[in-house]
Amino acid sequence: MQATHTQKLAASELESFYSSVRDYTERICAPLEAEDYVPQPIADVSPAKWNIAHTTWFFEEMILKRFALDYREFNPQFGFLFNSYYNSVGTRTLRHKRGDLARPTVSEVFAYRKYVDGKMREFLEQKLSDQQRELVVLGLNHEQQHQELLLTDLKYTFSCNPTFPVYNAENILEEIGEIEPEGWAQIAGGIHEIGFQGDGFHFDNELGRHKVFLNDFAISKSLITNNDFIEFIRDGGYGNHLLWHAEGFDWVNQNEINAPLYWHECDGEWLNFTLGGLRPVKLDAAVCHVSFYEAAAFAEWRKMRLPTEFEWEAASDKFNWGLRWEWTNSAYLPYPNFTKPAGAVGEYNGKFMINQMVLRGASVATPPDHSRKTYRNFFHPHLRWQFTGIRLAK
Amino acid sequence: MQATHTQKLAASELESFYSSVRDYTERICAPLEAEDYVPQPIADVSPAKWNIAHTTWFFEEMILKRFALDYREFNPQFGFLFNSYYNSVGTRTLRHKRGDLARPTVSEVFAYRKYVDGKMREFLEQKLSDQQRELVVLGLNHEQQHQELLLTDLKYTFSCNPTFPVYNAENILEEIGEIEPEGWAQIAGGIHEIGFQGDGFHFDNELGRHKVFLNDFAISKSLITNNDFIEFIRDGGYGNHLLWHAEGFDWVNQNEINAPLYWHECDGEWLNFTLGGLRPVKLDAAVCHVSFYEAAAFAEWRKMRLPTEFEWEAASDKFNWGLRWEWTNSAYLPYPNFTKPAGAVGEYNGKFMINQMVLRGASVATPPDHSRKTYRNFFHPHLRWQFTGIRLAK
Amino acid sequence: MQATHTQKLAASELESFYSSVRDYTERICAPLEAEDYVPQPIADVSPAKWNIAHTTWFFEEMILKRFALDYREFNPQFGFLFNSYYNSVGTRTLRHKRGDLARPTVSEVFAYRKYVDGKMREFLEQKLSDQQRELVVLGLNHEQQHQELLLTDLKYTFSCNPTFPVYNAENILEEIGEIEPEGWAQIAGGIHEIGFQGDGFHFDNELGRHKVFLNDFAISKSLITNNDFIEFIRDGGYGNHLLWHAEGFDWVNQNEINAPLYWHECDGEWLNFTLGGLRPVKLDAAVCHVSFYEAAAFAEWRKMRLPTEFEWEAASDKFNWGLRWEWTNSAYLPYPNFTKPAGAVGEYNGKFMINQMVLRGASVATPPDHSRKTYRNFFHPHLRWQFTGIRLAK
Amino acid sequence: MQATHTQKLAASELESFYSSVRDYTERICAPLEAEDYVPQPIADVSPAKWNIAHTTWFFEEMILKRFALDYREFNPQFGFLFNSYYNSVGTRTLRHKRGDLARPTVSEVFAYRKYVDGKMREFLEQKLSDQQRELVVLGLNHEQQHQELLLTDLKYTFSCNPTFPVYNAENILEEIGEIEPEGWAQIAGGIHEIGFQGDGFHFDNELGRHKVFLNDFAISKSLITNNDFIEFIRDGGYGNHLLWHAEGFDWVNQNEINAPLYWHECDGEWLNFTLGGLRPVKLDAAVCHVSFYEAAAFAEWRKMRLPTEFEWEAASDKFNWGLRWEWTNSAYLPYPNFTKPAGAVGEYNGKFMINQMVLRGASVATPPDHSRKTYRNFFHPHLRWQFTGIRLAK
Repeated sequence: MQATHTQKLAASELESFYSSVRDYTERICAPLEAEDYVPQPIADVSPAKWNIAHTTWFFEEMILKRFALDYREFNPQFGFLFNSYYNSVGTRTLRHKRGDLARPTVSEVFAYRKYVDGKMREFLEQKLSDQQRELVVLGLNHEQQHQELLLTDLKYTFSCNPTFPVYNAENILEEIGEIEPEGWAQIAGGIHEIGFQGDGFHFDNELGRHKVFLNDFAISKSLITNNDFIEFIRDGGYGNHLLWHAEGFDWVNQNEINAPLYWHECDGEWLNFTLGGLRPVKLDAAVCHVSFYEAAAFAEWRKMRLPTEFEWEAASDKFNWGLRWEWTNSAYLPYPNFTKPAGAVGEYNGKFMINQMVLRGASVATPPDHSRKTYRNFFHPHLRWQFTGIRLAK
Repeated sequence: MQATHTQKLAASELESFYSSVRDYTERICAPLEAEDYVPQPIADVSPAKWNIAHTTWFFEEMILKRFALDYREFNPQFGFLFNSYYNSVGTRTLRHKRGDLARPTVSEVFAYRKYVDGKMREFLEQKLSDQQRELVVLGLNHEQQHQELLLTDLKYTFSCNPTFPVYNAENILEEIGEIEPEGWAQIAGGIHEIGFQGDGFHFDNELGRHKVFLNDFAISKSLITNNDFIEFIRDGGYGNHLLWHAEGFDWVNQNEINAPLYWHECDGEWLNFTLGGLRPVKLDAAVCHVSFYEAAAFAEWRKMRLPTEFEWEAASDKFNWGLRWEWTNSAYLPYPNFTKPAGAVGEYNGKFMINQMVLRGASVATPPDHSRKTYRNFFHPHLRWQFTGIRLAK
Repeated sequence: MQATHTQKLAASELESFYSSVRDYTERICAPLEAEDYVPQPIADVSPAKWNIAHTTWFFEEMILKRFALDYREFNPQFGFLFNSYYNSVGTRTLRHKRGDLARPTVSEVFAYRKYVDGKMREFLEQKLSDQQRELVVLGLNHEQQHQELLLTDLKYTFSCNPTFPVYNAENILEEIGEIEPEGWAQIAGGIHEIGFQGDGFHFDNELGRHKVFLNDFAISKSLITNNDFIEFIRDGGYGNHLLWHAEGFDWVNQNEINAPLYWHECDGEWLNFTLGGLRPVKLDAAVCHVSFYEAAAFAEWRKMRLPTEFEWEAASDKFNWGLRWEWTNSAYLPYPNFTKPAGAVGEYNGKFMINQMVLRGASVATPPDHSRKTYRNFFHPHLRWQFTGIRLAK
Repeated sequence: MQATHTQKLAASELESFYSSVRDYTERICAPLEAEDYVPQPIADVSPAKWNIAHTTWFFEEMILKRFALDYREFNPQFGFLFNSYYNSVGTRTLRHKRGDLARPTVSEVFAYRKYVDGKMREFLEQKLSDQQRELVVLGLNHEQQHQELLLTDLKYTFSCNPTFPVYNAENILEEIGEIEPEGWAQIAGGIHEIGFQGDGFHFDNELGRHKVFLNDFAISKSLITNNDFIEFIRDGGYGNHLLWHAEGFDWVNQNEINAPLYWHECDGEWLNFTLGGLRPVKLDAAVCHVSFYEAAAFAEWRKMRLPTEFEWEAASDKFNWGLRWEWTNSAYLPYPNFTKPAGAVGEYNGKFMINQMVLRGASVATPPDHSRKTYRNFFHPHLRWQFTGIRLAK
């Protein structure tokens, strides 16, 4: 959720990018029933209906209403309903109340998408300024972020249902994995350059590119597996306060946490609720849905540590990534010379730079080509409904 | 939500009663979209899907599974999902989590209704014992209670939506009224008999019939109107602590209450969210959606009082009722010789006899022929999403 | 906490009553250290300092400031600090914040008492109007109520301390008991007169005296003992939902209640925290510190019921009472013709007549001569820090 | 709250250090009444009684019980009462329940201090190991931290009292200031060494000393004044969401924050509750009691930023510090090669390294000689009961 800079796509490339992103959202929705779009079981988890309307609203609010001649809003009330957190663009539905909205119906929301898509395609045929092109690309990256949220939010909602609904029985995202290299990458200390460089799309929080001094360090080429994590559980890891941040241990005890999210112990076996339904935990898959607190406690238990985001970026050519968002031990803070864009899009990143930890990489739920090695994802340390995992350093 | 006793309907009458009640539920649902069945904005307000599945579950659980030969459950998980509060019949979904359930879909729930209706019709063709007939009648009265809840819950859910959806634009329940007689009925004191008497259906809380001694009293023949209540507001009624119960005044201040539920002041005019959408307050209609606290404060402001439930019953032949559930100043407590039926149906009423106030009468949302002058409805004193109103005594 | 009516004490009797009540408060305080006067572990439990200052404030605010010539307030800030809930007499410290007040010190509060006592004695030497005399008597009855609260609040505060402080090791209030008669009193039904009659002091809620019709009933001459209650526990009473009000069973589960307040199970033995410290439960003493929910569930387990307050009053000549406040199954509501006194003292009782249950009798902590058979005490059904017990009816 | 390393004090110096620190605590307590030691208005603010007992408990638990021959505990219950958060040393009173403890009395706690002081002085006369000497020094630094808390907690407690008690009318800490230099210090970028170096006392979180790369930057030589902050208020700073972190703006709105803690606007003038009572805001004093959120919003309003902790340390020779703890824009995280000491003292720092921001410097309430330029203080970003202020960078 961030701001873009320069972008050198040809007009036809931009149209094609627009179509491919918008289509991908609809493909994600294909298996859903109308009722699936409505619930919001916790404030962090938005209804599918909200996700697909909000990404459409972005194009309407940030582009069509500002730049498209004679544009008529599809429905003036939708601005209020589907604004997320842009205080600069008027009032909005309280975040935790999104699940109360029976109306507009799913059909109406798809009609809204179709209307906006038609207007956007007309708009994209015109000669655009650099700023306009950047906003379109930003909107598409924004929608890609919500494509991942569509899946993670839907998984959470389905997990609350005692009937354990199946989203897709064929292709179990949580179990997709490439064979990962084993062993440790040794990285020499000294000054490293960190942050985005080049002409492509990036978010504002990846700038300014700057120097950091790193000591020598080693980073694992592979992620922690479910099997590794079961060892931690069996060794009493959740009960040993010495392994945990104080707030993490409180979180464990207040929420009676004893395993990653979505794990259920039945008759001595660990089952895992996946987008393919409830299934046995696949031991050699990368552990998933752990909080920062759990990742840090696991590292402490192994007498190692999590990498910083700078170490991760400096070493990222040495290992395959993309299966899990990887918790780092870096707080989400501005880089030197970070500046906010003017206007509403400037509300993207800076205002979240407190109390959150950086995750690097990408997950099996991230749309293709959306991430890169300078990409900075961030969540509060107790959250784990994203596809989050663990890589160790020492 | 209560237990039945004797019932003398012929077999064909029972079948006809069954059909008419079950059909009426579906007629209430006719204007709804699939999405409308899902949200639960507050714990008290169940999703429509839950209401219609729960009433069906009652017939399956209490009758078909016990008495119908070779009955096969439609779906064993539904017992868990659609049980309400019967601890004697196993675990159940937490009440405030009903809105998280995307599945089963509305179509599946209607298929469940159809399946159970088919089995019930076969069952009703058999020779039934008195107990079985009573349970069927109880189930139908139970469904009638949920018919009223379907409307009141749906109204609440729609009221949370900034687009103010319309359920039915033709026939505005809140504004239906018959011309009421004016003036006061004078009732002579002495011993009065209170409670149900006769052969017809009644709930356990209407028994035992017993004597009470009443002083002379007068009770109004008409209900308080919206116009009357606006005078209370204009006179600063919500701000004058001397009129309120201490807990009521806290409730007013903590929730910033300044009008009946669903009222909005726009440019000096009072608007009212109704099942027909947002409309000007109709001044001569009976005030609706007030809490016990508001009813009691209004009475105090008028230097009168609310009747007790005994006074109401003793005087009920003297006035028309049925527009609003009428708050009494009686706490919901057992009559002398009240006894609980054995088994799960005995969980109906006794366990709610604390911290609730009795309402008498019926409302415009109550199904035809569902209420009677001995009927005891009850809610907590701060609740007002039912069609509740005010009748004064002195 | 209520208003008085007529009172026929001679002047010297009034002075003597004043002295004896005020002295008794100080005798209750004799064993306390300065620190004991400060904490407020829960909102319901006021600090001792607050209790003794508040009863003094009543005389200053309601009598001296209105009727004593040239009276100068001891400290104008005390009105704000030690007002309890009289909205008519200005703003006040939030009830749950009373424990934050280090100042005024205990010495200053006793100086305040001494100052007011001096002025009151001067005032009592004058010729007083009936209203003035009534206010003095009301203030003294009010102080007697706070004398009981001083003990019950102090007991609660001490019970939160892992060192289990001892208030008085000699005379264990909880274990004081007279030999109670056994068996059942049979009371004939018909019309009974209920409410205060006569010239003596009484609170407004004891009026108007009125007729009630009662069926025949039997009421136990003795209270339920600790031993009786242990049987209920052993029989799984706290786990059997069929015995409980729904809200009571929620209260049990949310608060993990498994015994009366102040009971601790150590190595299979029940210990009881008393004003004399931690001691074994005395089996033949009347059970104490049970909520209405527990009293009602116990009665249900015995297949009996609690008496109504009318039954209790009608039968009260047939048994000894005074050991425990006895929960009745009557909600706290106004009697017919109940009227509030004008002015601030009218804020006493009417505004509490919702969501509370009536207790009758008196407890071992009630000051001598403070109660009578028409006295109506009242608390919320989950509260149990008062000396509350159980008498059954059938 | 941290661990020590090496320390080269002669035996007599250690005794003298011990005496001076312990005496200083008692001097802070000199103006207090017994009642002042008891309240705990919010969980973060401990009672004075707890602070002075806890620091004593540290010497008993960590030194005397482990190393002093034949040491007999003063009172075995005190370990439970006065342990703070050392899970390794048994159970403890819940943090937010410390204000419920009337007993032990203040006299008993001072007797405890005296007893431990006697035993400690005997202990210090012996030949100590390096580890033992380090623990003594650690305990004294720990007590110095609580000396500052004694003042800040007492100030908060007094501020809750409508009578505005005065701790010390002579010497108003909040207004003590040296004349600060004006202007900006320019610091050249490049590699800087950060962290403690040398033989003196330091906490574990100041290690390991390590290199960081900094860009060129400028840092103000002076702190933001009350006058500066009033300009921010007048310019609508608290209402302009663009200046704030999202969580900070929520905090402002939920808590209705419109000025630094302890400020009251009366008749258009800003008053400030100080340890000397309620006084007009001194315009040229450094602003105090602001949260990180307020500090960051103020910096944004000035179109500048807060320094990082590394910039602060690198520049700290260029300006006077010591008036206010200064918020940095660095999250509290471990330095490279940070290691926890073994055992209970290892519970000091590492476990707090999440969701807190680093403050550098010292405040007017910090004991003399307690801080140094590598000292890392840390609090959650919404807290402001410490003497916190603002220094800007650009």
